[in-house]
Amino acid sequence: VALVSLTTDFGMRDEYVGVMKAVILGIAPGLAIVDISHQVTPQDRQQAAFLLKNAYPYFQSGSVHVVVVDPGVGSQRRIVAMNFDGHYFIAPDNGIFSLLLEGRAPQKLVAVDSRDWFLPQVSRTFHGRDIFAPVAARLASGKPLEELGTTLAVETLHHLPPPCPPQRGREHIAGSVVQVDHFGNLTINIDHGLIKEIENVAPSADLKIHIADQVIRGLSSCYADAPVGTPLALVGSRGLLEIAVNQGDARRFFGVARGEAVRLEW
Amino acid sequence: VALVSLTTDFGMRDEYVGVMKAVILGIAPGLAIVDISHQVTPQDRQQAAFLLKNAYPYFQSGSVHVVVVDPGVGSQRRIVAMNFDGHYFIAPDNGIFSLLLEGRAPQKLVAVDSRDWFLPQVSRTFHGRDIFAPVAARLASGKPLEELGTTLAVETLHHLPPPCPPQRGREHIAGSVVQVDHFGNLTINIDHGLIKEIENVAPSADLKIHIADQVIRGLSSCYADAPVGTPLALVGSRGLLEIAVNQGDARRFFGVARGEAVRLEW
Amino acid sequence: VALVSLTTDFGMRDEYVGVMKAVILGIAPGLAIVDISHQVTPQDRQQAAFLLKNAYPYFQSGSVHVVVVDPGVGSQRRIVAMNFDGHYFIAPDNGIFSLLLEGRAPQKLVAVDSRDWFLPQVSRTFHGRDIFAPVAARLASGKPLEELGTTLAVETLHHLPPPCPPQRGREHIAGSVVQVDHFGNLTINIDHGLIKEIENVAPSADLKIHIADQVIRGLSSCYADAPVGTPLALVGSRGLLEIAVNQGDARRFFGVARGEAVRLEW
Repeated sequence: VALVSLTTDFGMRDEYVGVMKAVILGIAPGLAIVDISHQVTPQDRQQAAFLLKNAYPYFQSGSVHVVVVDPGVGSQRRIVAMNFDGHYFIAPDNGIFSLLLEGRAPQKLVAVDSRDWFLPQVSRTFHGRDIFAPVAARLASGKPLEELGTTLAVETLHHLPPPCPPQRGREHIAGSVVQVDHFGNLTINIDHGLIKEIENVAPSADLKIHIADQVIRGLSSCYADAPVGTPLALVGSRGLLEIAVNQGDARRFFGVARGEAVRLEW
Repeated sequence: VALVSLTTDFGMRDEYVGVMKAVILGIAPGLAIVDISHQVTPQDRQQAAFLLKNAYPYFQSGSVHVVVVDPGVGSQRRIVAMNFDGHYFIAPDNGIFSLLLEGRAPQKLVAVDSRDWFLPQVSRTFHGRDIFAPVAARLASGKPLEELGTTLAVETLHHLPPPCPPQRGREHIAGSVVQVDHFGNLTINIDHGLIKEIENVAPSADLKIHIADQVIRGLSSCYADAPVGTPLALVGSRGLLEIAVNQGDARRFFGVARGEAVRLEW
Repeated sequence: VALVSLTTDFGMRDEYVGVMKAVILGIAPGLAIVDISHQVTPQDRQQAAFLLKNAYPYFQSGSVHVVVVDPGVGSQRRIVAMNFDGHYFIAPDNGIFSLLLEGRAPQKLVAVDSRDWFLPQVSRTFHGRDIFAPVAARLASGKPLEELGTTLAVETLHHLPPPCPPQRGREHIAGSVVQVDHFGNLTINIDHGLIKEIENVAPSADLKIHIADQVIRGLSSCYADAPVGTPLALVGSRGLLEIAVNQGDARRFFGVARGEAVRLEW
C-alpha cells in the first residue's frame, strides 16, 4: 500500500482538504493518506519545506508527498514533480523544491504538464483538488513519473535561499529560531553535526546559549533535565538545537518569535 | 472500498470524532473515512450544508455523507437519510437536507428509525456516536436504504430558506458574503452561471464589485493577477464569486464578516 | 484490520503526528489509525486519560491505544504497556495508567524495554516517533505483549489520584467540573450511577444544581429541553452530569473553567 502525505496552508475549517482526499481515494482506493500539516502559515514556503524535510524520511520509500502552499495558483508558475531520495514530491515551482533539495540533485525532475493526469476540469484557484490530488493518486498507483511531463534541469527550478544560515566564528555560532512548535519549543538552525564538532573542542557543559538577553548554560539531553519551568537547550528530535522550558513554553518565556537571533558560545 | 465523509461542529479537542470513527470502523473495517470539517460553527446548519454541497461531488458515487450539526439531539426531531445525486446523506431533519437539495428531489428519502441499525444503547446527547456512525457504516457496507426506515415525502422535510439569495437588477446584482475561508477569502452567493450571463452583456473588465465602501474593478482569473496585498475578485473554486487579497486576508482587509453586502455593477 | 488510536498533546501544526503515522504504517501497512485528540493541554495527563477512558470502549477489542503526554521523555521514566479490558494501551509511566485503571487490575502489564521493537535510532526528545509508534504497530500486527518487556506488578506503576472525587453528603453531592468541551459544555465528576441513586430518593425535578452562584432546577434529558440560550443539566454522553446551555456555551455563560465547584442538592 502506497502512502500519500499532504502539507498545505489550507487549515481545517473548510472543505478543501477533504475534497483533495476524496479525489485521491476516488482514483486510488485503499491508499493511505497522512496529514503532515494543514496549518502552515498561509504562503509560507519555508515552513512547509521545513516540516516536510523533517517528516519524509520517516515514510516508507515510494511515498508521494504533496505540498500545496501556492499563492501563484492559476498563474504561469509551473507545477513540478520529482523523485528524490527514494520518494516522490509534487509542489508548485515556487522554491519549495530548492529548500528540500538543499543543493542536492533529484533522480528525476519533471514539469507537471500531462493534462490526462488531472481532473477533467481544471480551475484557476484550486490546483490542490484539480491537479495535485489526481497526480499524487496516479503516482502512488504506480504510473511512471516519466509520463507526467517533460524532464527539467534542476537549474531551472525557482530558487529560494535557505532561511538564515548560521554564521560560525572562532568561539561562537550565530544562528536563529527557524520554527516555533506547538509547545513553544524553539528550533534553531544549528544542527547536531555542528554541535558534535563543538563538543570536540569544548565540553557541552561549558556552552552558553544566548537568547533575548538571557543565557542558558550547557546542553541538556532531555527536557526533564531542567527543573520544571526552567529553560534549557538540547538537540531536539529534528536533529537541530532546540531551546525549551521544561513543561513550559519557551516562546512565551523569552517573548520571542521565528527569526530571533540565538548565539552559541564556547 | 466505500467512503464515508464527516461534517460536524464537534471540534477536534474532545474524543467525539474519534469515537464516531471507532464505531464506523468496528462495523465496517477497511472503509475509508474523510473529514470534511469538524469546525463548523456550533449549530450552524447553513455552513455545514455549504461545505458539504461543495465537497460531495468530488467523492465517488455511493459515498455516505454524515452531517452532525444537531442542537435538537435527543428531542423529537427526526433523523433522515436520502439517496441523492448518486450519494447517500444522513443528517438531523433540521433544514440541512433542504439546503442540500435546493428544491431538487432525492431519489429516496427515509426516516432513520430502524433501531437494529443503531448501537444497542442510544443516549439522548450523542446520536453521532449512537445512530449516525453505525447507520453510515451499514449503508457504506451495502445495507439497503429501504430497510433503514419508512419512506418520507420530501415536502415533510424541515425547510430552511437558502441564505440571502442574490437580487438581480438591470445593471447590478446585490449579493452577500456566504462564507469566509481559512485564508480570509470571501465567498459571495453569486455563481459562475450568473457571471457568465453578465459577461455576455458587459466585458468583465468593466465590472465593479462594491464591498465595504470600496470598489474592485474587473474580474481576475487567478489570485496572482493582482499585486501582492491588493484586493481582487474572481470566480473561486466553489464556482462562486470570491473576493480575495493576493497573499493577504480579505476579511481583515475589508473588516467584514459573513453576511456583508456585496454589489456587482456593470 | 486492527485499530490504533492516538491521544497526544502535540497539536496539529507540526509534523509530529504525521511522522508517528508514517512510522506506524511503514511497519503495519493497511492498519487504520484513529485520532482521539492531539489537543490535550500540554502535559495534562488527567485530561488525556479522561478522553481515552471515554473513547476506548467504542473501539473494537484488540485495538491499540497510544498516549503520548510525556514531559519526562528521555529521562529515567519508564514506558509501560498493558492489556486491559480487551484492549492494549501504551503510555509513559507517569500516572496515565493509574487514571485509566481506577484501581482495577490489567490482565498483563509490562515495561516497554525490548529495543528491537523500537526504531533503530532512539532520540531523547521524541519517543512518540521512536518508541510508541513502532511498538503500537507491532502490537497491532499481533506481536505478543509478553515479548515487549518484563512483566510489572501494578503496584509499581506511578500513581496519580483521580481528580477531585465528589463528596457525598446527606442531601447533597459536592463535585466539580472535570472537562470543558468544544461547545463549552461542562462535564462534572458525578456519574449516572450516583444520579440514579439520588433519583430513587428525590424526583429529578427537585434536584438543584449550584454553579457559580446560580442554580439550575431539575435534570433535563436533552439539550433542547431548555429554551435556547438557557442553562440546563443532564446526564451527558460520557455518562456524567453535564451542565450546558441550549445552543450556547456554558463555560462563557457561567464564566467558569475546569475545577469549578458544582453542588447537587435534593
